[in-house]
Amino acid sequence: MKGLIMDYPLTTTTILEYGNSVYHNKKIITYLPDGTREEYRFGDMYKRCKKLANALTKKLGINNGDMVGTFAWNHAPHVELYYGISGIGAICHPINIRLTSHQTEYIINNSEDRVIFVDATLVPLLEKIAPLLETVECYVLLNAPKDFKTSLLNTIHYEDLLADQNEDYEWPTLNENDACGMCYTSGTTGLPKGVLYSHRSTYLHASNIISPNAGNYSNLDTLLLIVPQFHVMAWGFPYLCLLSGSNMVLPSSNLQPEAIIKMLQEEKITKANGVPTIWLGVYHAMKENPPKEKLALQEYIVGGSALPKSLIEGFEKDFGIKGVQAWGMTETSPLGTVSRLQPMHANLSENEKLNIRAKQGTAFPGVEIRIMTDEGTLAPADGKTMGELQIKGAWVINSYFKTNNQENFTDDGWFKTGDVSTIDTDGYMEIKDRTKDLIKSGGEWISSVALESALMAHPKIREAAVIAIADEKWVEKPLASIVLVNTEDTISDEELIEFLSRDFVKYQIPKDYVYITEVPKTSVGKFDKKEIRRLFAEGKLM
Amino acid sequence: MKGLIMDYPLTTTTILEYGNSVYHNKKIITYLPDGTREEYRFGDMYKRCKKLANALTKKLGINNGDMVGTFAWNHAPHVELYYGISGIGAICHPINIRLTSHQTEYIINNSEDRVIFVDATLVPLLEKIAPLLETVECYVLLNAPKDFKTSLLNTIHYEDLLADQNEDYEWPTLNENDACGMCYTSGTTGLPKGVLYSHRSTYLHASNIISPNAGNYSNLDTLLLIVPQFHVMAWGFPYLCLLSGSNMVLPSSNLQPEAIIKMLQEEKITKANGVPTIWLGVYHAMKENPPKEKLALQEYIVGGSALPKSLIEGFEKDFGIKGVQAWGMTETSPLGTVSRLQPMHANLSENEKLNIRAKQGTAFPGVEIRIMTDEGTLAPADGKTMGELQIKGAWVINSYFKTNNQENFTDDGWFKTGDVSTIDTDGYMEIKDRTKDLIKSGGEWISSVALESALMAHPKIREAAVIAIADEKWVEKPLASIVLVNTEDTISDEELIEFLSRDFVKYQIPKDYVYITEVPKTSVGKFDKKEIRRLFAEGKLM
Repeated sequence: MKGLIMDYPLTTTTILEYGNSVYHNKKIITYLPDGTREEYRFGDMYKRCKKLANALTKKLGINNGDMVGTFAWNHAPHVELYYGISGIGAICHPINIRLTSHQTEYIINNSEDRVIFVDATLVPLLEKIAPLLETVECYVLLNAPKDFKTSLLNTIHYEDLLADQNEDYEWPTLNENDACGMCYTSGTTGLPKGVLYSHRSTYLHASNIISPNAGNYSNLDTLLLIVPQFHVMAWGFPYLCLLSGSNMVLPSSNLQPEAIIKMLQEEKITKANGVPTIWLGVYHAMKENPPKEKLALQEYIVGGSALPKSLIEGFEKDFGIKGVQAWGMTETSPLGTVSRLQPMHANLSENEKLNIRAKQGTAFPGVEIRIMTDEGTLAPADGKTMGELQIKGAWVINSYFKTNNQENFTDDGWFKTGDVSTIDTDGYMEIKDRTKDLIKSGGEWISSVALESALMAHPKIREAAVIAIADEKWVEKPLASIVLVNTEDTISDEELIEFLSRDFVKYQIPKDYVYITEVPKTSVGKFDKKEIRRLFAEGKLM
Repeated sequence: MKGLIMDYPLTTTTILEYGNSVYHNKKIITYLPDGTREEYRFGDMYKRCKKLANALTKKLGINNGDMVGTFAWNHAPHVELYYGISGIGAICHPINIRLTSHQTEYIINNSEDRVIFVDATLVPLLEKIAPLLETVECYVLLNAPKDFKTSLLNTIHYEDLLADQNEDYEWPTLNENDACGMCYTSGTTGLPKGVLYSHRSTYLHASNIISPNAGNYSNLDTLLLIVPQFHVMAWGFPYLCLLSGSNMVLPSSNLQPEAIIKMLQEEKITKANGVPTIWLGVYHAMKENPPKEKLALQEYIVGGSALPKSLIEGFEKDFGIKGVQAWGMTETSPLGTVSRLQPMHANLSENEKLNIRAKQGTAFPGVEIRIMTDEGTLAPADGKTMGELQIKGAWVINSYFKTNNQENFTDDGWFKTGDVSTIDTDGYMEIKDRTKDLIKSGGEWISSVALESALMAHPKIREAAVIAIADEKWVEKPLASIVLVNTEDTISDEELIEFLSRDFVKYQIPKDYVYITEVPKTSVGKFDKKEIRRLFAEGKLM
């Protein structure tokens, strides 16, 4: 028997309408790349989203199901694009601006973006590959001066696009299971893979993050969105702010510690997100030059990499600001777990508490996690038994875009994360290692496998194994251990860096190289990364 | 294009599984009618829900879509029934224990309950009508002594039902739009009407109440569920506690102020719900006999009637406990709005702040509200223009059970609440009056129309108009203004009370009677309640 309840689809338009109806006076503040501060209200954005919807449908001919790319920093027009594009039934596809030209080209062709909205400062990156883009019909320039010059064909300024549009637009009724957004994984062991979010998954993800056990966001908050909008939809923050009525501060490219501290001070920001690298930078800058008044910042939520305990401790002791560890993946929208203390932890020592807070934490309602051992059995929740972390839930993918490959999914429908983890008796998950050998530097994935194959393409190199080593600034950085073809040969670090820069962007390229006589192997002949890490840890590699 | 996201139905079983997985150590504490305290964990409840599921399907032959009634106070087995019944795909139907025999009989026959789970202390109420119940095959006795005697046929003790059942049970995959629960409205202008909640509406309602702008419930909390489980599913609290990881305290019939204060003290309750009458009682008892130590209670959320400003003020000033006004209806699951202050209110005077907090508040994400004027136009959000409050959303009904009558719905799909309200520019809704003339006394509806027609059935009475007047204990109580057939006649209050007790239960019967020469009428000849209220307010009636 069906319940007698209204059909009320959970869409990004539902979010937008709610935000406008209850919180039209809340603020969206942008610090543009040139440092200019702009401010308007949710209600103003709402009107511009409707203008954008008219422009998209009537002027650009975008239809339901079309893909529309963005190539931009975090700023108000980018938020308008989130709502405007998905509001007409098209799919908002923020493109990671930090990939290689080849990856960017691949992503745009693979997604079939018809239009790309691009920041003026990022136009040079697209100019290089524009001739190779097969589906892009036009480029809309964001934050560009009137006399902006570009070799891109068919360009129009964003403000000109909106200028003569009507503020009246009737949003179509959308199916909540239809796609509203797409992000690509960072291309780990191969080409980037598309992850297609639905309206429903986007809504549920955002509405669950605002709960007190998770992000704890409310209409008392002003949030700083450091996580880029081209990274898993900025963790859903442009959506959740409208549900929670939190003011939104968008830094665009102002991500230097000093710029962030200035925003924290001037906007009285209460909570923020970001990868650990950003907060390490902010912490050290604050240590060097302590703010005169206590910041309004209560806590920062961190994902993408493990939050170092020393950072949690330092920030809290020195400035009374709490670090909160969360975990997620592009494939999980991203947020799946968060680590917060509970009353049962009250009597633990400070160090024991720190150990719990440094775990990846407990699952939000709407997702479930489990650990499967190598033997294919469910691992007990004992905090010790390791196995692959698997996840299912209302905002977890069931497939990648344009592929039938189901190797990342179990037969009973769980997503295999590739992370090796434990879960303790209270449900706290901790990532112990990776089954895929990835390095995460400054919040960005670096594929060790890709680096290895590139290095091994060098005529003087026989074998190369890349592992992650700790780095104070980037949390992790790659270290390449190299076996030379001819042991009498030498290669300078500069030569290798130059060699790799043909295929990799700067942050992906190892700065550290060691030379070994043989790469340790597992029983099936695979590189034994664990053994290499052990050798490094014991000082036998450097 | 569909998003590539897992199909993950939002059901009560999803809630139960989540609660067991992440919060199996959280507590459910019951104070039984005899004052005994019982405690177990979410994990224990989970196992018993599975035993219950086996008993329901295998022993009682309950099928998907069957209706199963409960007639019980708030206690742990009643929570098991919520999850166990809906978990197998049947519908949990908590029956209001405070209705007349005739209404109870009607509800049970109308819903077609196949089994009723009944508290031993409430058995006498069912014994009276059992012969009239057409569909009930068996009664399961809750909290009954072994040697319990009853005239009910086909009874079994709850613990006997569960005793030999297996703890293994595989929950069926349910459609989230299927019904999971039913409550009846309190029968205002006619017979009670059934409201059939879906799994999805139940899930979304619960998961939105835990957000900081609404109830703000987390795994740091211990909640006291004063709102009866037979009143709109206890406002969803038995569900939300598993999502938020809050300990649950269930008072059964221990609702006297002293009993509540004892629970607040002994269980270190942090938050609670309830109608204003309960909190008035608690407040006065605390004033008379102040607790020696400050209570852990941070706030109580109130719905069902307007929270008197004097109570908000007194509780906060005297005991540092915050009263939070919410609003909802059986038809809206129930919660739709809540009133909390925002940073923009910081500079208001204490009295202005109080005025905002006494409003019904802003809509939660997932529902939308609007005010329609008598002319059928959308009222501006100016805090002044009155009109009918209308609501739509993910947990609002689109029809009553077993009726095609759509008179309570607008053509564009909104539910007409029958309340006359305003909405201010910040989205705060305030109920000003009622289009239906109802009285809400101690959280229970009393139909003035029904009382009037009963009174006018008295041979000596020509006309009778009943209005609500303020009452310190019950918030509202009915006042009957009577026009005698023969002005020389007299009727004693006792005679009228006796006369009405044939059709009404005690709390519904007016204790206050005034005699007037004519009932004021509107232009179309209807009783002008507004005018009667004005006369009363000016002291011209008593």
